[in-house]
Order: sequence, then C-alpha cells, then structure tokens
Amino acid sequence: MAHALRLSQRGLGNVWPNPAVGCVIVRDGVIVGRGWTQSGGRPHAERVALDQAGVLARDATAYVTLEPCAHIGKTPPCAVGLVEAGVKRVVSAMTDPDPRVAGRGHAILRDAGVEVVEGVSEDRARALQAGFLSRVTHGRPFVTLKLASSFDGRIATADGESQWITGPLARQHVHAMRMTHDAIMVGGGTARADLPALNVRGFHTPTQPVRIIASSRALPDLAAEGAEHGAIWQVSGAVDNIMTDLAARGITRLFCEGGGVLAASLLRADMVDQVMGYTAGVMIGADGRASIGSLALQHLSDAPRFDLAETCPIGPDLFHRWVRRQD
Amino acid sequence: MAHALRLSQRGLGNVWPNPAVGCVIVRDGVIVGRGWTQSGGRPHAERVALDQAGVLARDATAYVTLEPCAHIGKTPPCAVGLVEAGVKRVVSAMTDPDPRVAGRGHAILRDAGVEVVEGVSEDRARALQAGFLSRVTHGRPFVTLKLASSFDGRIATADGESQWITGPLARQHVHAMRMTHDAIMVGGGTARADLPALNVRGFHTPTQPVRIIASSRALPDLAAEGAEHGAIWQVSGAVDNIMTDLAARGITRLFCEGGGVLAASLLRADMVDQVMGYTAGVMIGADGRASIGSLALQHLSDAPRFDLAETCPIGPDLFHRWVRRQD
Repeated sequence: MAHALRLSQRGLGNVWPNPAVGCVIVRDGVIVGRGWTQSGGRPHAERVALDQAGVLARDATAYVTLEPCAHIGKTPPCAVGLVEAGVKRVVSAMTDPDPRVAGRGHAILRDAGVEVVEGVSEDRARALQAGFLSRVTHGRPFVTLKLASSFDGRIATADGESQWITGPLARQHVHAMRMTHDAIMVGGGTARADLPALNVRGFHTPTQPVRIIASSRALPDLAAEGAEHGAIWQVSGAVDNIMTDLAARGITRLFCEGGGVLAASLLRADMVDQVMGYTAGVMIGADGRASIGSLALQHLSDAPRFDLAETCPIGPDLFHRWVRRQD
Repeated sequence: MAHALRLSQRGLGNVWPNPAVGCVIVRDGVIVGRGWTQSGGRPHAERVALDQAGVLARDATAYVTLEPCAHIGKTPPCAVGLVEAGVKRVVSAMTDPDPRVAGRGHAILRDAGVEVVEGVSEDRARALQAGFLSRVTHGRPFVTLKLASSFDGRIATADGESQWITGPLARQHVHAMRMTHDAIMVGGGTARADLPALNVRGFHTPTQPVRIIASSRALPDLAAEGAEHGAIWQVSGAVDNIMTDLAARGITRLFCEGGGVLAASLLRADMVDQVMGYTAGVMIGADGRASIGSLALQHLSDAPRFDLAETCPIGPDLFHRWVRRQD
C-alpha cells in the first residue's frame, strides 16, 4: 500500500477532475503490475496495473489507494475489471465518496467472491485525496496558500520591488509544488503588476496548471495557452462563489500565490486548507507590502490558525508548511 | 576542549563585563578539575579548576576556551596561577583580544616552560565569545533581536492585542535565551504598552539581566530591582551612541525584544548580529502591528540580510535563528 500511495502522487495536478489513484498488483510476493491515474484522469490506475499484469493478475492481490470505481464512465468500471482479471483479493485504503461509487465498488468485488480489506493506510490516503475529497464533499477545491516573504512578512518594498526575495532553490520548490496542483490562482493586482508566467518550469509535467486570475477588470497580456502555459480562466465575485464554480469545473487542488488582497479574502472566507511559507533572511520593514491584506480582526482569538506540518531549510531560505487547525 | 566549551556556556549572561570561559584540567587521562567563570565574572574558570585539582594539577594538561589572563585585576593572573600549580601543557582555543592580555598570557606560560597549543576549536570558541569580542573589538555589545510574530510578521492586532501569539513553550524558550544575555532591551512604547517583566522566569539564574528601556520620556512603573528583576537603565539618543555606552558599562550580550520601532533602528544602524524568530501559525493581516518598523529602503539590495543558522518546531510554533550575513 505504501508503494501504491507513492505511485498515486504522480497523478497530483494532472488528473483533475478525477482522483489521483495508485494500484499495485502482487502475486506470490512479486509485483506483477503497477499503475497510477494517467494524465487527464484516464486510464485509471487499476486498468494500467491490470494491463501490465496480464494473465498474472489471476489469483493475485491488488492494492488500491481508493475504492475501485463502479460506474460506467469513459472507461468500464475498475471493480468489474478486477473481477474479470481474476484478482483474488483487493486491499483498499478508503471508500470513494463520489455518490456514483460510495461503497458500490467494494460491493461488486465482494459479490463476485473477491476478498476485500478496507481502510488500510486510510489517513495517508485521505491526505493525498484532499483535493478530490474537498471537491466531492465540500464542493470546493483544496486550497494551498503560498507566501514567499521577507523575515517580517513583506512581499515587496514600498516601490513594489520584489524580485527576488527568496532564492533560486525556493523558486524551484515552488515549481514542484505548482506541478502537484490543478490550477494556480493570483489576484488581478498581482497579474497586472508582475505579469507572472504561472506555469511549471524546470520539471517535466504532462499538463500545465490552469491559470486563474481573480479580477473583474480587463486582464493584462499574458502568454497564450499552449505546451508551456495552461488555460486562462478569469473569475470574479465573492470568494465562496468562485470556489464553488472552480470545483464544478473540476478543479480539485488550487495553488494560490497571492497577492495580499486575494490571500486575505481566502483567509476571511476560511477557504485556506494549507499554507506554504518561504521565508528569506531579509528585512524589508513596515513600509514594504504586506503578504496578507487586512483581515479586520476584532480579537486575536478570531484569527485563522494553522498547525505546523513540516519545516526545512531550502537553500538560504526557510520552508514551512502549515495545515488548517482541526478544532 | 569540547567539554570546556560546554562549561563556558554556563557563564553566558552572568559574567559581564568579563568573558565566559571554561577550563578542564586532565592528568593521565582523568579529569581532575573543571571550572567556568563564576557569576559576576570571578573567580575565573582556571582558578576554579585549579582549586578543584589541587596537587593533581602538577604535570597536568589544562584546556582553556580563552587565553589565560595576564593582568593583575581583582584576582591574580590565571597564567601565573597555572604556572604556579605546575601545569605542564595548556591547550587554548583562542587569543584574548583584550589589550591587557593579547598574547601575554600565552607568553607568560611559554616563558615558564609550559607547552602551549593555540587555536584548538577556535571557531566554536569565538562564537561563544561573540559578546565579549564585540565589546572589546567593536566597542558595542553583541545584539540578538528577538521577534515573536504571527505567520505574516505581526506582533499585535490593530487594537494592540498581543497576548499570546506564540505558545507557552516558545515563551519558555525566550526565558532560556534571556538567561544567556546580560541585558534585555525594549523601546519606550513597548515598555509603556505592555509593562513587561523583562526577567528570567522558570529557570534558576544567579543574576537577572539588566532591563534597558530606550526612551527619552518618563518610564512607566516597572517592578523594583531585586532578586526577581535586574537593574533598570534608561537610555536614549542615537542607537550607535547607546550601544557604545552600553559596551562601556560592560554589557557584552544584549537581547532586544522590540517593539518594531526599536527593531528598525537597530537594523538601520546595522547593529543586529543575530535574529531569533518565533513564528506562530496564526494570521493577523495587514492592519496588525508590524514586527519591524519602517526601514525606508531605497532598493531591495539595500535590505539587511541574515543567514539561517538553525530551525526547529517549539510546541506549535516555529523557531528559526539567523546570523548576520558575512559579506
């Protein structure tokens, strides 16, 4: 299962609106098939692994990071595929909350006489499915807020000078993080001021993330959609409506890169699931531009709180990742 | 020497205006004496270790983290003490830059036929002597700037609410850090707004740090000097003059706890040697109070820069220590 979970990560950012799944088929202690959800969301992980295993799938055990699908979509249901291949036992990390599945995949397997073990490494699987779970159960994407700032939380000098506060290794890390998200979002001010490329550079990615600009005004002249740049979606209005709309359009994992006004809107709407901080050892001072706009807090106890999940140096900068506090 | 260096740390914050030194005396592979500079700066480390070793110091090796003193002050010179005790060999980490010593301690030993090895673990020794070295060679204390802030670099809400942004473990760590400094400094605004205790609590300390308030206005009613609180020194004027004055009065290690205006003054004057950040996973937003006041930077390239020295979680908060960038 640990291997299947690692395989599933390869799909993050490339398989929306589908979940990123991993599958490993083992027969007599030997791995005979490995698969993960392919770019664009299909073929599914089970299909890839079954095709690789061929006749060796008979009487084998399949490890899947999400309940196999039960609905006939653009591909036949994976639960049926596993039965037809003669798999003897399926070890599954979690039930698929998609109402078209929701236990029916496991039921198809059991009805056909396949032994099913559920809930193995479920916490880890749910963390990797955070985007898909958020879209299916909350009707909004999983939102990562990225903040690269000076030691004192500034993203630019008073004159707007901001290149570069953090170093090249931190920027490279940001590209790796962009790659695991379906879309990158910035506010209109940032889009106009920085004309950001908002793409993945320096890593091979099968699909570039969608570029989402939150602005009701005319957009600046950004690079055209193509191999190097994703589609441009302009959105505006209340943040919760925007998020509902993005989930409806299939976005499961959203990477928000600011500026301060958009970051504050997301925080005020309690829409931020994870914060990635890149802190440079530079001081800009109170006349610099704030990483987060006004939150209009009445009391400190009302402030959004996050729990530290990991921290490490990245080049000369400090990386720290925080997740929404579970009350 | 590693052991002597660890012993020397016990004196940090308690021995000003003297350096915090460690001494270990070894005879035939057995430690026969250990000493460190005692509270108030005397007896010196060598005297303590020699007294402990007694006659066993004869033909022994003494490890000292700083050149033994050569001048007759309130105690006889340690170099003479080592000779009189019959020590055969002295291993020293570094030369004492104090003009009253400056190699004369090592010379006294050599002239008496003692073998002297210099420069062992010198980098580590110099780091521990940073305060004494700064006072003797730059005429100002070694300055640690402590900043406990929200994720976005705020030290209070717009209404001034600031208790508590960081958690109890981070505050406990601050007390341990205060203990290793001779004095704690805050600006007048912070002194008046928070009436801070500015003492070491929760740890046994032989001496409480001096409380320094940088303000030209009348001071608020702070706790009287005594066992629980150090002396109160009021200072004002240009930051470099203040620092020269504090060094002249003997302060070697200064712990500055803000507020933002004082932090900015120290940074603008390039007086900050080390920054200790305590970052909480809470967002306050741009209307909160900034951890660092205006630096009036013309360009990002003019901004003060620091190198990351260490980072770790402390309870729910993130601790990160940075040191002045060496150009």
